[in-house]
Amino acid sequence: MNDVLPFIGEFIGTAVLILLGNGVVAGALLNKSKAQNAGWMAITAGWAFAVMAGVYTAKAVGAPGYINPVGPLAAVLTAGLQVDKALMFAAAEIAGAFVGATLVWLHYFPHWAETPDPELKRACYCTAPAIRHLPANVFGEALATFVLVFVGTAIVEKGINGALAAPLGGALVWGIGLGLGATTGYAINPARDLGPRLAHAILPITGKGGGDWGYAWVPIVGPFVGAAAGALAAAKLVTGA
Amino acid sequence: MNDVLPFIGEFIGTAVLILLGNGVVAGALLNKSKAQNAGWMAITAGWAFAVMAGVYTAKAVGAPGYINPVGPLAAVLTAGLQVDKALMFAAAEIAGAFVGATLVWLHYFPHWAETPDPELKRACYCTAPAIRHLPANVFGEALATFVLVFVGTAIVEKGINGALAAPLGGALVWGIGLGLGATTGYAINPARDLGPRLAHAILPITGKGGGDWGYAWVPIVGPFVGAAAGALAAAKLVTGA
Amino acid sequence: MNDVLPFIGEFIGTAVLILLGNGVVAGALLNKSKAQNAGWMAITAGWAFAVMAGVYTAKAVGAPGYINPVGPLAAVLTAGLQVDKALMFAAAEIAGAFVGATLVWLHYFPHWAETPDPELKRACYCTAPAIRHLPANVFGEALATFVLVFVGTAIVEKGINGALAAPLGGALVWGIGLGLGATTGYAINPARDLGPRLAHAILPITGKGGGDWGYAWVPIVGPFVGAAAGALAAAKLVTGA
Amino acid sequence: MNDVLPFIGEFIGTAVLILLGNGVVAGALLNKSKAQNAGWMAITAGWAFAVMAGVYTAKAVGAPGYINPVGPLAAVLTAGLQVDKALMFAAAEIAGAFVGATLVWLHYFPHWAETPDPELKRACYCTAPAIRHLPANVFGEALATFVLVFVGTAIVEKGINGALAAPLGGALVWGIGLGLGATTGYAINPARDLGPRLAHAILPITGKGGGDWGYAWVPIVGPFVGAAAGALAAAKLVTGA
Repeated sequence: MNDVLPFIGEFIGTAVLILLGNGVVAGALLNKSKAQNAGWMAITAGWAFAVMAGVYTAKAVGAPGYINPVGPLAAVLTAGLQVDKALMFAAAEIAGAFVGATLVWLHYFPHWAETPDPELKRACYCTAPAIRHLPANVFGEALATFVLVFVGTAIVEKGINGALAAPLGGALVWGIGLGLGATTGYAINPARDLGPRLAHAILPITGKGGGDWGYAWVPIVGPFVGAAAGALAAAKLVTGA
Repeated sequence: MNDVLPFIGEFIGTAVLILLGNGVVAGALLNKSKAQNAGWMAITAGWAFAVMAGVYTAKAVGAPGYINPVGPLAAVLTAGLQVDKALMFAAAEIAGAFVGATLVWLHYFPHWAETPDPELKRACYCTAPAIRHLPANVFGEALATFVLVFVGTAIVEKGINGALAAPLGGALVWGIGLGLGATTGYAINPARDLGPRLAHAILPITGKGGGDWGYAWVPIVGPFVGAAAGALAAAKLVTGA
Repeated sequence: MNDVLPFIGEFIGTAVLILLGNGVVAGALLNKSKAQNAGWMAITAGWAFAVMAGVYTAKAVGAPGYINPVGPLAAVLTAGLQVDKALMFAAAEIAGAFVGATLVWLHYFPHWAETPDPELKRACYCTAPAIRHLPANVFGEALATFVLVFVGTAIVEKGINGALAAPLGGALVWGIGLGLGATTGYAINPARDLGPRLAHAILPITGKGGGDWGYAWVPIVGPFVGAAAGALAAAKLVTGA
Repeated sequence: MNDVLPFIGEFIGTAVLILLGNGVVAGALLNKSKAQNAGWMAITAGWAFAVMAGVYTAKAVGAPGYINPVGPLAAVLTAGLQVDKALMFAAAEIAGAFVGATLVWLHYFPHWAETPDPELKRACYCTAPAIRHLPANVFGEALATFVLVFVGTAIVEKGINGALAAPLGGALVWGIGLGLGATTGYAINPARDLGPRLAHAILPITGKGGGDWGYAWVPIVGPFVGAAAGALAAAKLVTGA
């Protein structure tokens, strides 16, 4: 059992992340929601607490608490994690994100039929750019993920390592969302985008539209590039890391 | 006295929870309030600080700091709490919620007559669904309470146990409110709904309407089901719990 | 010097409290401010950080960190503080509040002439009720201050005593502001209201109106009554206090 | 390498500060941004998390974590830092701010052409007063920076020194932004204003206007004056500092 717990932890932790994170988007966008038009501050706050909750959950089950495939990628590049384990972490995270998105669909079940716009509905699952400009979109996802990994490493190194890494990581993602999220919706996590995009494709969501699969590679490639750069820079520059 | 203090603590702590929590709803909804239309971010923030204040208060008086009947339920299922003590905790919490709601009535006393809509007034006491769809409403309350109990156990296990459990618990409830609260108003606590619904029925609130008692079982059954599932899952999965 | 530092600390800490706290009100209310109409969430957040900053400042100078005359009152009732020292603390706090309000006047200097409404200008100094109903106003100030003192004692007792009392106290005041502040503007501190009301009377504020001195006793009597009740209740109920 | 790391740390930390801080301004002001009109609460929150992220980053690389030339100034005045080192810190911070502003330009690349107003675009780089009144503007920047340095010293002295100085410093800047930022936009940091103003002058921003260089001395002189006063006052009054 202990061999499997790290993967179960990443699975459940990422499900919690997406349940609460996509949940706040659904609350802000869907018709007849008590949180409709709650605004960008509420959306970024919701994702911050979702990160806190997901990281604590993953860790409590015995996982590293990445809840993001860029975590195992960074660990492969700078901490000697085996590639097959990294792939298993990533698969667990994508599966967890799929389950989290499915729970959001169930939680807001009667609201989908009340919301005519299919793009608003898809926005409750996966990201879309404010302005479609692929070079800028890829750059933006890479830059925001660089900040996540580089500053995140700094926080773990200089903050209170164990007990407060989850809320401090949530605060960092709040800051990234406010500062850099307004362009692409800050996936900064390939599982956060791909898992829910798959859920959107498969679930019988009332009146749904297309999945915008032409954009799906951006929140995968951008975060991986930014995370690799961030992990290598942190390995060189962050004291003791 | 020491035998009674845990119950007094749950009573006072839940009164503080409802005073500050229902207080922020009243501030956002009642006419001529300085906080009118303060919005969903303010409402969820208010409940978060209400949780923090209530848990600290209950603990300081010598109680476990549940301020929610799902706490004793979880303790019966997974920690061997006696059923009669659990019922006494639940009764103290419901009574505390009743007192907290009564204080909100007094605090906003001149505002009730200025607010014609009886549904807005009832919303300052107990929850109501954004869309009345009982299966989805029960599922939503159960899911949100599952997150409260499961992730809450993870936070107590992996966070700073004693001193910061209250603010971290408040942060979790902020995240649940933002992510999952927009459908049913996130009672996630049978005392939070039942105590104030009783207060609404009994108090001579100017121009009040009916108590919507047909819905009253939802924020009782949903949270208990979700909490039982969350407690059993945490007992199995959370390391050391 | 060491004998005087506690009073200097209360003086400076209260000046910081009012500078940042009344500052956020001025930013939200005065014309041509970048923060105009920032809303109730921003106002309550501003006061929370003002409490944090003021308490840290007072403590760092060598004071207890009350920054509120209800603190020395509680210490007289339950911790044996001498009455003459309590009066000196209160005088230092009122003087600090006066200085803080004067600094707000200077900081927003060109904005006063741009704001015609004299009531909005007075609201940047002292509190006024949303609905003038003196029994409810006194009760509301007393209730909110009871929560401040009782729950505040609980937090100091059960939270991390020294290092985090200031931010946790700020979080409590954020919760009180959101939950109970919308009726009277939550003075919950006689110095916070009286010092700036005196500043409003004396300073040559462009186009100012009357000082509403008929209301001035409410945010003095209400907080003292609530604080006395809260301190006595905490002395009886809070474990170890 | 170790001799250079403190300057590299200030350089990167200030770049992170400006990337996230100016990023939230750009998100709130530029057309077609998902955060457009997010409001003053979101802007001040974004700067708070930017401070937290920048300080952690600078410290993790081996720097003191000033990310602001008023830090080395204070250290020269009260802690014996050599002037040539202080100038190198300031230069590294201004260079970092320039790079951070350049990254904001790239991150929001397609949004500049969508936003016609050149003043809104310049506001994404450097500060401008709400009402141009130079004595009040200089006083305001000096007063807000006095609070930053004096209260910041108090927090470092009385808070949890190492691990939580970054988030507590961010909370202080949140409070300063809410309480005092609405007049001049609270540069309170010469590098924060000068570095991005240079970037605005040099970068080929679509449809940009003038740099308002006549105001550029205000957010340099005001912060230095206030910081010097704050550092000297803290050296005299803060216990143990």
